[in-house]
Amino acid sequence: MDQIPLTPMVWADGRLRLLDQTRLPQEEVWLTLAGCRDVVEAIASMRVRGAPAIGVAAGYGLALAALAGDASGHRALMTQLRAAAAELCATRPTAVNLSWATTRILEAAEAAATPAAIRLAVLAEAQRIQEDDIQANRRLGRLGAELLPQRATVLTHCNAGALATAGYGTALGVVRAALKAGKQIRVLASETRPQLQGARLTAWELARDGIDCTLIVDSACGALMRRGDIDVVVVGADRIAANGDTANKIGTYQLAVLAKEHGLPLYVAAPVSTLDLSLANGDQIPIEERPPEEVTAIDGRRIAPEGVDALNPAFDITPQRLIRAIITERGVARPPYEQSLRALTERVEARA
Amino acid sequence: MDQIPLTPMVWADGRLRLLDQTRLPQEEVWLTLAGCRDVVEAIASMRVRGAPAIGVAAGYGLALAALAGDASGHRALMTQLRAAAAELCATRPTAVNLSWATTRILEAAEAAATPAAIRLAVLAEAQRIQEDDIQANRRLGRLGAELLPQRATVLTHCNAGALATAGYGTALGVVRAALKAGKQIRVLASETRPQLQGARLTAWELARDGIDCTLIVDSACGALMRRGDIDVVVVGADRIAANGDTANKIGTYQLAVLAKEHGLPLYVAAPVSTLDLSLANGDQIPIEERPPEEVTAIDGRRIAPEGVDALNPAFDITPQRLIRAIITERGVARPPYEQSLRALTERVEARA
Repeated sequence: MDQIPLTPMVWADGRLRLLDQTRLPQEEVWLTLAGCRDVVEAIASMRVRGAPAIGVAAGYGLALAALAGDASGHRALMTQLRAAAAELCATRPTAVNLSWATTRILEAAEAAATPAAIRLAVLAEAQRIQEDDIQANRRLGRLGAELLPQRATVLTHCNAGALATAGYGTALGVVRAALKAGKQIRVLASETRPQLQGARLTAWELARDGIDCTLIVDSACGALMRRGDIDVVVVGADRIAANGDTANKIGTYQLAVLAKEHGLPLYVAAPVSTLDLSLANGDQIPIEERPPEEVTAIDGRRIAPEGVDALNPAFDITPQRLIRAIITERGVARPPYEQSLRALTERVEARA
Repeated sequence: MDQIPLTPMVWADGRLRLLDQTRLPQEEVWLTLAGCRDVVEAIASMRVRGAPAIGVAAGYGLALAALAGDASGHRALMTQLRAAAAELCATRPTAVNLSWATTRILEAAEAAATPAAIRLAVLAEAQRIQEDDIQANRRLGRLGAELLPQRATVLTHCNAGALATAGYGTALGVVRAALKAGKQIRVLASETRPQLQGARLTAWELARDGIDCTLIVDSACGALMRRGDIDVVVVGADRIAANGDTANKIGTYQLAVLAKEHGLPLYVAAPVSTLDLSLANGDQIPIEERPPEEVTAIDGRRIAPEGVDALNPAFDITPQRLIRAIITERGVARPPYEQSLRALTERVEARA
């Protein structure tokens, strides 16, 4: 029997039901978020995380803001929505999906004539973003699956799975599609300190689907590549610049250097909503610095002595020269990325 | 006021007093070990760890075995000591210091005429190994300090400090000596999953000495090198083959690849007791695989879902081509290491 496909959030009865990812894998706790501020808190504290997933959550945050909006006029409600969008976008600076989703929704709202129509338009657009993301993942999963050998061990970092998206996943979507296509795929998941998304989330969602997954510490990736235990690296993305430079979870950059050293392909799997062609290269992507306590303590228990300082950049930039291909729902982009990524977005605009 | 120099073990009243490193940094617990089996347990469960330190501990393990030995004859006592040495060496396969220390002590014992003389000889040799190691670290520290710039941020991995040796440290001995020589040195410590020796031990012993230390997750090393935040990498070693290939804590290999990618020197700091010239290269060094629970749980609390498997190689091999120099108490060896390491050991033999 197939399980219900995993999704990290569900809109129901004018509320956002959200799986609290900070409690996984110990407990499956579903929160009910009734206001936009609750969504802001959930994104900031990483109860929902993953670039596409926080884009979807931000969409529903605006839907909650629109429903709660006490403004009677179109202009006043739009002002409230723009303030809510700014709050949502301020939670986490690196992923572009927050501004992408809120911009898309504000545009839909602008086109509506009355406050009631705005409320309907905002919710409809938020739901469309969620549905589109699942479809995008399924498509990019199929395209990415073709790049994997018939039999492969795939290293992935952090969680670019169903939990990081509206469902199905980007990097893990590629794995799921390859398995569905009959390929023999085994996953090595790096645990991904400090927040342990590999150990807590990737291992959890793959085990739920019965997919073969083995956990390793982040420091073991190089040694296992050298030993010949890894065939391909597939990761997600938080923001991709026009030249292909990619922001993703801290540690991705060093995996890319190691993959190059061992002649292994590293693929980035991400929906086009993660592209930010307004930035020429990765140097312009803001990197979130998170609290040092995420490094000096685990689950609230200190591991380092009191008073010791820590640096905690949450993301890093992988230069495009280390990326074999970028897998999107509109096609697989190859170097030179300036051209191939631009072509993918032009194809959309032509369609739209 | 200077603090008492840090040492992880003290021989007193026919017992070995040992700092339980699994309890740091939360508690400073000193164990009293009365028998060789207690030392075997302490090494196997990493209450004492670090290649030089477990060599010293093994020496005292044999001293305890000799004192407890009920054999009346020379030959019977030697048989008991050889059995104890085999047990000590079986605890952890990668570090060569266990067999180096126990061989040295068995040779000293062989030369003694009576059981009483054996007991004295074993203890004296164990104490000599401890004293020699501290002196070796101070010497290699001074030699290594000359290699550091006047002002540098040093990345180190795991704990190659006072706690990993008889005192002073190897990689951290280089840092201490450079500071003493007036250089401005800042340490970045990678936390070193799974056992977190960087967070728990390196940060603790550097804070104790007032040395500037900032903690990072293992995944952040590459990004910080790319950002220009690291000048030099200095690590310890568990075993060095004749060609310079070096076994050290898992993650060292990938730091070495990253250092090369960024044009940074990686130095290995280790006493000659860590050399194993009987092995032509690193492929012949046995790599300890430790229990998967060290990865799937932290401090006894599970972080991964039940049933998920993990690989947990405790060490990796850094090929000699990635090592700028090997700093020993007898001199700084440079490539080609076959010649330079051999020359260092021949110098000893000539002296002896």
